[in-house]
Amino acid sequence: MNYPSGVKVGAKVKKRQTNYTNRGMTLEEDINLTNEYYLNENLAIIHKKPTPVQIVNVNYPKRSAAVITEAYFKQASTTDYNGLYRNRYIDFEAKETKNLTSFPFSNIHEHQITHMQQIIDHGGISFFIIKFTQHDETFLLDSNLLIAAWNKQFKGERKSITYKYIADNGYLIPFKYTARIDYLPIVDKIYF
Amino acid sequence: MNYPSGVKVGAKVKKRQTNYTNRGMTLEEDINLTNEYYLNENLAIIHKKPTPVQIVNVNYPKRSAAVITEAYFKQASTTDYNGLYRNRYIDFEAKETKNLTSFPFSNIHEHQITHMQQIIDHGGISFFIIKFTQHDETFLLDSNLLIAAWNKQFKGERKSITYKYIADNGYLIPFKYTARIDYLPIVDKIYF
Repeated sequence: MNYPSGVKVGAKVKKRQTNYTNRGMTLEEDINLTNEYYLNENLAIIHKKPTPVQIVNVNYPKRSAAVITEAYFKQASTTDYNGLYRNRYIDFEAKETKNLTSFPFSNIHEHQITHMQQIIDHGGISFFIIKFTQHDETFLLDSNLLIAAWNKQFKGERKSITYKYIADNGYLIPFKYTARIDYLPIVDKIYF
Repeated sequence: MNYPSGVKVGAKVKKRQTNYTNRGMTLEEDINLTNEYYLNENLAIIHKKPTPVQIVNVNYPKRSAAVITEAYFKQASTTDYNGLYRNRYIDFEAKETKNLTSFPFSNIHEHQITHMQQIIDHGGISFFIIKFTQHDETFLLDSNLLIAAWNKQFKGERKSITYKYIADNGYLIPFKYTARIDYLPIVDKIYF
């Protein structure tokens, strides 16, 4: 399980590695800033869902805030981001990989695939944002293509999507300083 | 701040009071079961967002799951539920009150009002589900009406909506055993 980047660094928490390719920001942080920009500009209302946590124990000290003293990370049952854009429901998952040549399916859970298929079936917009950190390239890939590739693994094909396939069939998202992962112009192009 | 009903009862956590009016289930639990039913019947894809938590400290014991040892409840920046129904984005908040004659605005945060207005402006469906536990009645109230009443409080009017107004202008949601808070037929009626 990947732990969310929002986790503050505790005594035993490894520090996130920073290298020149990610400009010191994770994909999640970049997307959050982009969504904030979209919201401020009144372009789209897209939020990241909070990290699901199973809370086991809470203390209520007198005269101060409740403290959760025991909790565990839970697996998300949907994708991380959803919202509303130009009257349409929009839903996506974002992942980064250090792999140079492919995006391994081990990054995706089966129920996320199920969720993406449901979104498509009910008329929503569904895609993946995949960042190859070593190439410093971020792509938008329509979920139909991802689901098709995912299903082929059960027929003995590869358990990943190649970088080449994503580069050929996805859309490179340009890096901008206002909207760091400016995916809405690509959404306009594909889904409207 | 209201703590979520998903919190397991710890040493210092008060037990939730159960009385005959709520059949032992909170509104949240009833809505979660309803959404599960809708999902299984392939009618709608609506999920509750996880409770937002600020994680401060995590321990990684050898050979077992990471334990969050210090975290705090955060205020939600949006509404609790959203999803996709008949090609449309749907978004709502659910609240219960023990009050007999009115629903106090202290149950709502201003940024939730802002969020609901944004949803309306961008073509989404937005409403409130309000349960009067003492009456054992649950209503759906369109967000436009709620926002209008909310805004009037700043012109010196009441800081609540009366039960009578909600009963007259909202829609009583019938209790069913399959879909305990069966709100979709009302959504069909109002928004389609």
